[in-house]
Amino acid sequence: MHLVDIHLEKGIAEANRRAAEENAARLHAAGVRAYDLLGAIGSGKTALIERLVPRLTDIGLKAGAIAGDVYGDDDFQRLIALGIPAVNVNTGKECHLDAHLVSHALDDLPLEAIDILFIENVGNMVCPTDFLLGASKRVVVVSSTEGDDVVSKHPMIFRESGIAVVNKVDLAPLVGADLTRMTRDIARYHPGMPVFMTNLKTGEGIGPLLDEILKG
Amino acid sequence: MHLVDIHLEKGIAEANRRAAEENAARLHAAGVRAYDLLGAIGSGKTALIERLVPRLTDIGLKAGAIAGDVYGDDDFQRLIALGIPAVNVNTGKECHLDAHLVSHALDDLPLEAIDILFIENVGNMVCPTDFLLGASKRVVVVSSTEGDDVVSKHPMIFRESGIAVVNKVDLAPLVGADLTRMTRDIARYHPGMPVFMTNLKTGEGIGPLLDEILKG
Repeated sequence: MHLVDIHLEKGIAEANRRAAEENAARLHAAGVRAYDLLGAIGSGKTALIERLVPRLTDIGLKAGAIAGDVYGDDDFQRLIALGIPAVNVNTGKECHLDAHLVSHALDDLPLEAIDILFIENVGNMVCPTDFLLGASKRVVVVSSTEGDDVVSKHPMIFRESGIAVVNKVDLAPLVGADLTRMTRDIARYHPGMPVFMTNLKTGEGIGPLLDEILKG
Repeated sequence: MHLVDIHLEKGIAEANRRAAEENAARLHAAGVRAYDLLGAIGSGKTALIERLVPRLTDIGLKAGAIAGDVYGDDDFQRLIALGIPAVNVNTGKECHLDAHLVSHALDDLPLEAIDILFIENVGNMVCPTDFLLGASKRVVVVSSTEGDDVVSKHPMIFRESGIAVVNKVDLAPLVGADLTRMTRDIARYHPGMPVFMTNLKTGEGIGPLLDEILKG
């Protein structure tokens, strides 16, 4: 049983790695830079896209999005309301997107009309980490309302991301969250990774984050 | 590949079901009533235990706890600070507890000195659903700060639970969450399931929830 398990896991991981490389090559060829947005349910992944898209439009960049959720189209509806091309991906029972699902979503997107593609992963701090999608970079979003021990509990997602966002900083005093602890834990797991403090409800902190994304 | 996958999943599910039944029998024989606490990171699962334990003590009932997390002992430290017997279970990369892990945790608990056992699952809205642990009942905890679409996005966890808690109701206006939508979505997925609105920071709403748990 354990041997089968290990072989199967290796097979799935290897197939995903190949599919992610194919996605990356395809996105590169189409001139699309893609960001894999990770974080728990309600951390602010969709709100981040909502804040970034108008600013990208202002500077002449075209955005697109893939909405990953176990079920439903709540995020997808918010994304198409932005007037950008978007695809909804329901995973059914899976707690993460994988490169194969994303390749089908890419089939349904007008890649030639997209500069920056946001791939919003399923709201989950654990499962998505193991499945690269072919994005240029991973952005992990946590919020103060998840508790200031949220970083400490999830080392891998911070190690595997390139940008961290700490959102809902305005609510930190109300929930008793110590933002210093959160940024210290991020620095411990991934020294040097840029961290941005935001309130995506108002847009506070989005400017420096946009600069970092454009630098990528 | 797919056939192996299906067989393996069936094998794992079947082994977990048997282990869960063994846990249930063992808990029953020891006179322990166990609750499997489900919900996202930061929803308030640990806070719920912190609020319930003193009230249980007041009425002469002894509590115990199992803290499930991917990594670290943040929750475990809060639980032992309550002065109750507790065991920390780190799942490593798994996004849920399973019945086998719980059986080992039961080995390390003084079951004869416990009336009510709280099994705090890994913070996750997806993975724990498929893995029964042998508890008498599942309690799902969501918070308004996760967004009022959090229920809509996760039908299964509500269908599979016996009690629902909507926490951080005080923050709902600040994050623009519609609590009516949340309770309506819960009723849609699991008609008749009791739902309790709480602010576990202050303890608001804990009384009726305690009554429901004692009824069980």
